[in-house]
Amino acid sequence: MRTFIDCIPCFVRQALDAVRLATDDPAVHERVLREVLREAADLDLREPPPEMGRRIHGLIRRLTGRDDPYASAKRRFTDAALRLHPELARRVAGSADPLATAVRLAIAGNVIDMGVRSDLEESHLHEAVERALDAPLIGSVEDLRRAVDGAERILFLADNAGELVFDRLLIEQWPPGRTTVAVRGAPVINDATRADAEAAGLADLVEVIDNGSDAPGTVLAHCDDAFRRRFADADLLVAKGQGNYETLSETDKDIFFILQAKCPVIARDLGCEVGSLLLRRGGRAPAGAAETRAAGLAEKDP
Amino acid sequence: MRTFIDCIPCFVRQALDAVRLATDDPAVHERVLREVLREAADLDLREPPPEMGRRIHGLIRRLTGRDDPYASAKRRFTDAALRLHPELARRVAGSADPLATAVRLAIAGNVIDMGVRSDLEESHLHEAVERALDAPLIGSVEDLRRAVDGAERILFLADNAGELVFDRLLIEQWPPGRTTVAVRGAPVINDATRADAEAAGLADLVEVIDNGSDAPGTVLAHCDDAFRRRFADADLLVAKGQGNYETLSETDKDIFFILQAKCPVIARDLGCEVGSLLLRRGGRAPAGAAETRAAGLAEKDP
Repeated sequence: MRTFIDCIPCFVRQALDAVRLATDDPAVHERVLREVLREAADLDLREPPPEMGRRIHGLIRRLTGRDDPYASAKRRFTDAALRLHPELARRVAGSADPLATAVRLAIAGNVIDMGVRSDLEESHLHEAVERALDAPLIGSVEDLRRAVDGAERILFLADNAGELVFDRLLIEQWPPGRTTVAVRGAPVINDATRADAEAAGLADLVEVIDNGSDAPGTVLAHCDDAFRRRFADADLLVAKGQGNYETLSETDKDIFFILQAKCPVIARDLGCEVGSLLLRRGGRAPAGAAETRAAGLAEKDP
Repeated sequence: MRTFIDCIPCFVRQALDAVRLATDDPAVHERVLREVLREAADLDLREPPPEMGRRIHGLIRRLTGRDDPYASAKRRFTDAALRLHPELARRVAGSADPLATAVRLAIAGNVIDMGVRSDLEESHLHEAVERALDAPLIGSVEDLRRAVDGAERILFLADNAGELVFDRLLIEQWPPGRTTVAVRGAPVINDATRADAEAAGLADLVEVIDNGSDAPGTVLAHCDDAFRRRFADADLLVAKGQGNYETLSETDKDIFFILQAKCPVIARDLGCEVGSLLLRRGGRAPAGAAETRAAGLAEKDP
């Protein structure tokens, strides 16, 4: 997905939020903001939004000397999600359709996105869980079920720290031994890295790799060769969150995007309302699945 | 008041809103946005926010070739306010304290600010009236009453088109023949010009002058000599809205600011909550008034 000019005020706001989280020094706040304005003035709108995110957050890390300004926020949300996990696992197990419930919970976890809101609190997480279990889900869980059943090598592209605990519930529904989870290669916003995957308990469940890149999405040109090989070899991709959607919406791989549409630009691109819960098949889906994708079929849990 | 870095994301958002209102041409949207980002990158934060507003909206007028992109919105809100006027005049006349009620209604009219929200609707105006009659008013109507009674030459610095109809209710409470109303010298956002003052029926009531400037505030350095003389000669200034507060908060003239605090930056500067109704004496108030000003006394209508 390209960058829209509506993304630009949001980049500027996000840069200010992020640098304030990284340092209390007003001179650095101002310097980062001026640099971001200069970068944005010459931005290539053909690039996906996470490419600008990569530059903004790289600039903040460089100018503040802090490698991971979101480290404590990431720990806080991982801990909060781990506290919720036993109850969520019970809900999945007790549900009439555990896979559908796990998809919904994975979408609930997608609210843990500090690029969208830096003032995120644990209470938002609880609200997101209740909402995700109740609101319409746009997309076909049956399609996902069939695709997972037919795939040998599933590459799960993770999004944020904390959210990974919710993703575990989903991955646990799949046949064991087929899934690899890929995280970012370096800290950017509160996106998940290897350390966050370990903290979420994922490393005991699946192989965890990183993509070698510090973009808050999957910009293949910035990923390392090892990741690109795994990407190419996968039968099925499952990609969490807006950043992965924005960077991979034009891939020709068979891919399911699992996300909440958190801004008007992406909602317009996806043809849905802001706040919608989405399980969207993209890329080169097999012929039989095409109708479901085109219809954007809304399923409601039994 | 200086510009804070929090103003910058808001400038960028405002520029995008405004250029979309001025033209449907996406190439012009992008060009304006890039120019605004470049200007903002080098912005002198010691200048008040309306100076950047002046540049943004001048750029939009130049690049779209439209002298007054808000002309139809201004007419719409003047018409809406004129339809409300008879009922509002009855409320003032029937009130236990007509001056206090007129101050509150003048603050209600201050919601007609398309710099703050470009999607303003007539229904917001009705809500603003009811809220302004009910919410606490921070400031002393008694101070204003005494200042007006003691002044020979009152210069009323108007803010927006449509809002002027509400201001009429206030000016009508004052001894006739003492008040001059100053509007902007050229169109900028939906700020009032001479034509808007005439449409509001103010020209039949008081002398109307313009300040010779196209800033959405009163940047004296950009105003013409004739206006600056009138400003210097006034015994009392009454200034409506955020733009006039932002540009005149450091004046040494005796001045009352009448406004609603519509953004977090100005609310912080004024020491109040966003949405507060304010009648704030500033500048060089006479000795007797100092305590009231310092106390920020909240009065509630009887």
